[in-house]
Amino acid sequence: MSILVVGSVAFDSIETPHGAVDHCLGGAATHFALAASYFTDVRVIAVVGSDFAAEHEAVLTRRGIDTRGIERADGLSFHWKGSYTGSLNEAKTLGTDLNVFSTFKPKIPEAYGDSEYLFLANIDPALQDTVRRQMPGVRMVCGDTMNYWIADHRENLAKVLKELDVLLINDGEARMLSGENNIVKAADKIMATGPRSLVIKHGEYGATAFFSDRSFPSTPKLHPFRAPALPLEEVVDPTGAGDSFAGGFYGYIASQAVFTPEVFRRALFYGGVMGSFAVERFGTERLQSVSEQEIEDRFKLFQEISHLGFARE
Amino acid sequence: MSILVVGSVAFDSIETPHGAVDHCLGGAATHFALAASYFTDVRVIAVVGSDFAAEHEAVLTRRGIDTRGIERADGLSFHWKGSYTGSLNEAKTLGTDLNVFSTFKPKIPEAYGDSEYLFLANIDPALQDTVRRQMPGVRMVCGDTMNYWIADHRENLAKVLKELDVLLINDGEARMLSGENNIVKAADKIMATGPRSLVIKHGEYGATAFFSDRSFPSTPKLHPFRAPALPLEEVVDPTGAGDSFAGGFYGYIASQAVFTPEVFRRALFYGGVMGSFAVERFGTERLQSVSEQEIEDRFKLFQEISHLGFARE
Repeated sequence: MSILVVGSVAFDSIETPHGAVDHCLGGAATHFALAASYFTDVRVIAVVGSDFAAEHEAVLTRRGIDTRGIERADGLSFHWKGSYTGSLNEAKTLGTDLNVFSTFKPKIPEAYGDSEYLFLANIDPALQDTVRRQMPGVRMVCGDTMNYWIADHRENLAKVLKELDVLLINDGEARMLSGENNIVKAADKIMATGPRSLVIKHGEYGATAFFSDRSFPSTPKLHPFRAPALPLEEVVDPTGAGDSFAGGFYGYIASQAVFTPEVFRRALFYGGVMGSFAVERFGTERLQSVSEQEIEDRFKLFQEISHLGFARE
Repeated sequence: MSILVVGSVAFDSIETPHGAVDHCLGGAATHFALAASYFTDVRVIAVVGSDFAAEHEAVLTRRGIDTRGIERADGLSFHWKGSYTGSLNEAKTLGTDLNVFSTFKPKIPEAYGDSEYLFLANIDPALQDTVRRQMPGVRMVCGDTMNYWIADHRENLAKVLKELDVLLINDGEARMLSGENNIVKAADKIMATGPRSLVIKHGEYGATAFFSDRSFPSTPKLHPFRAPALPLEEVVDPTGAGDSFAGGFYGYIASQAVFTPEVFRRALFYGGVMGSFAVERFGTERLQSVSEQEIEDRFKLFQEISHLGFARE
């Protein structure tokens, strides 16, 4: 089944303790699409400038990703500059040039009309809402956001949240969005504003999924579920880890015939798996060339590091 | 089998968003002993003052804990005053009165000589070392420490670390002790100084166990193992959560005939279970009256929230 993702296809200039890269291919939709492409068909809606060359598009098309929805506009592509220090848990943004993204009006190619899964990557909630409205028949809508939109675009964000099957955010965003320090209370408050389910990402500590009564209407309310992250000795570049998590998570869901609590739980593990690959190299390098065997091996490793009765004695 | 614990039996004055208590029974050895008492026999080495009354001792003896090693000294018991705000992850110490603890010289009653498991709770490493030397025949030594000893008592601490089978500390302590931000590198560096295995506690995110080549000499080096914490809507008082975790962890190990990687992993879950009970009420209140059924039910809940293929559909 097909996932339609709308979000940024961009260039990143990144500095980490392991080195620096200038204008490497990045953006939430890029990381998401690459990670999801290992599980299902992916179609991208985005806008790029004249600096987006054939070699950049090839990164996506080589993975079978449909790029017909990537619009070319006059000017330069969205550019983000950031650095990481210390424990690499948080990026310091050094600069954001919206460029062609500042006037982006998402248009959905006719060929994308039958997409069954919609992912609203982290962009202006007004744009997320526009795309959502153009896809009324999708089976599931999953979305992301960030502190900037939570702080200054509440009204538009509220409209998006109302329509979400799953919201994926991190701890800080969950606290900011809810005004609650306690993460369980934060989850309840957020789900009361719309999202049927909520995945809160804890960086190096994994992620927790929270379910509401509306998550799986035929199942009594479920306990939260905690998925681990892999303890990594070397994080080369955390950029896009959250988007790669989302890609693995949603890609796995879209690859399954039915949507059950167990599919949701396994999807969280696949999210962690793809996130753990993403950070091994700069930019999208690692996600361009993972093998299916590596994904399955790492999935088993995730079980081994978190499940009783699973690992060798 | 018997665990001998040396550490503080004290009084705590605590303020949290849920209320305040003045001079309630606390101390690392108290929380540890209560949690461990649900799994095995526990013997305590500590010193208290004239304010330690029969009612306080009864809290321990009612749980079958051997208090013959609790020495009575002139003066007042150790007193800690602290407060928690916000996410309740970290205590702010408002005052520490060592009182009788400042001149404590641990003596081990003859009846304790056959203890097979030794727990060195968070006290002056010089005292930990004294006790360790008096118990050369124990089967296993497990210990805790804190930032204060790491900062200013390195030499004494180094002696203790050399002898440990398992060191239990939190993220901040692991980073401070190793000088490494990355938690995997931190673990390697710390284990190179002595401890065969290391448990790093992540507060509301659970704990990770790291194994060295010496953890289980007959088993090839093991991957780290991550145990979850229960997402809690209400943390009434986090004081003693880490000590209760240690009590559940070590109590379970001591209750098992053999020590295997799987026993270690299950012990981490029991640690989380006892920690999750401890924070439900102020002080030791909840740990005084858990039932075995509640412990087993919560253990299953821990599996349900972290294991694939375990929970209901």
